[in-house]
Amino acid sequence: MNIITYGTFDTFHYGHLDLLSRAKSLGEKLVVGVSTDQFNTIKGKTCYFNFEKRVSWINQLKCVDVVLPENSWEQKKEDIKKYKIDMLVMGDDWRDKFDYLPCDVYYLNRTDLISSTEIRNILKKEV
Amino acid sequence: MNIITYGTFDTFHYGHLDLLSRAKSLGEKLVVGVSTDQFNTIKGKTCYFNFEKRVSWINQLKCVDVVLPENSWEQKKEDIKKYKIDMLVMGDDWRDKFDYLPCDVYYLNRTDLISSTEIRNILKKEV
Repeated sequence: MNIITYGTFDTFHYGHLDLLSRAKSLGEKLVVGVSTDQFNTIKGKTCYFNFEKRVSWINQLKCVDVVLPENSWEQKKEDIKKYKIDMLVMGDDWRDKFDYLPCDVYYLNRTDLISSTEIRNILKKEV
Repeated sequence: MNIITYGTFDTFHYGHLDLLSRAKSLGEKLVVGVSTDQFNTIKGKTCYFNFEKRVSWINQLKCVDVVLPENSWEQKKEDIKKYKIDMLVMGDDWRDKFDYLPCDVYYLNRTDLISSTEIRNILKKEV
């Protein structure tokens, strides 16, 4: 089964790593779309690290088979066709948003995921 | 060339990832010792995540060839022999501390490394 997920992955941390390894465990091949700096601008999102740096982290993970740039909201349909995707995996803050896509859509329970806010809180407690 | 490094890798982040990929780039094989919870107790260090979890992150990195538990200060000599290590790589907050070991010792410039404190500051600024 071929899985795809999308993200920004700024200030890469174990929350991202856990999400990606859970996504991979749902199938055999994991494709990851990393949002480009241009796409982030469209979304009104500012990243600390540029696209090249964010991609370099994702490329270092065993669970990731293909990394591609995410340039627009519309490209998901093309990616699904091109990579013969069976399932899109996203955090459930996106619930219902991608139900229109021509593949299974699996929303990971956000309570199991780790957000940057939680990590900030953990790091604050660190000795 | 065989490289070894040691660390705790609590709340895994891109600073750890950058350090490990830089260590790997210095040779062909990278061995990583992850401090056990018992060893952390000896060092007076408290981790947020247990050994199994911290090891699971390191195991997911392409640049890492072997992961082993670090149980004591003394085991470095044995590891160097067992894994035919040519070079120990550590952050330069450890400068001079491991010069007695029977291999090359490379202290990575800490100004190039990213500490948990810096990441905390970056996350604080995150939108």
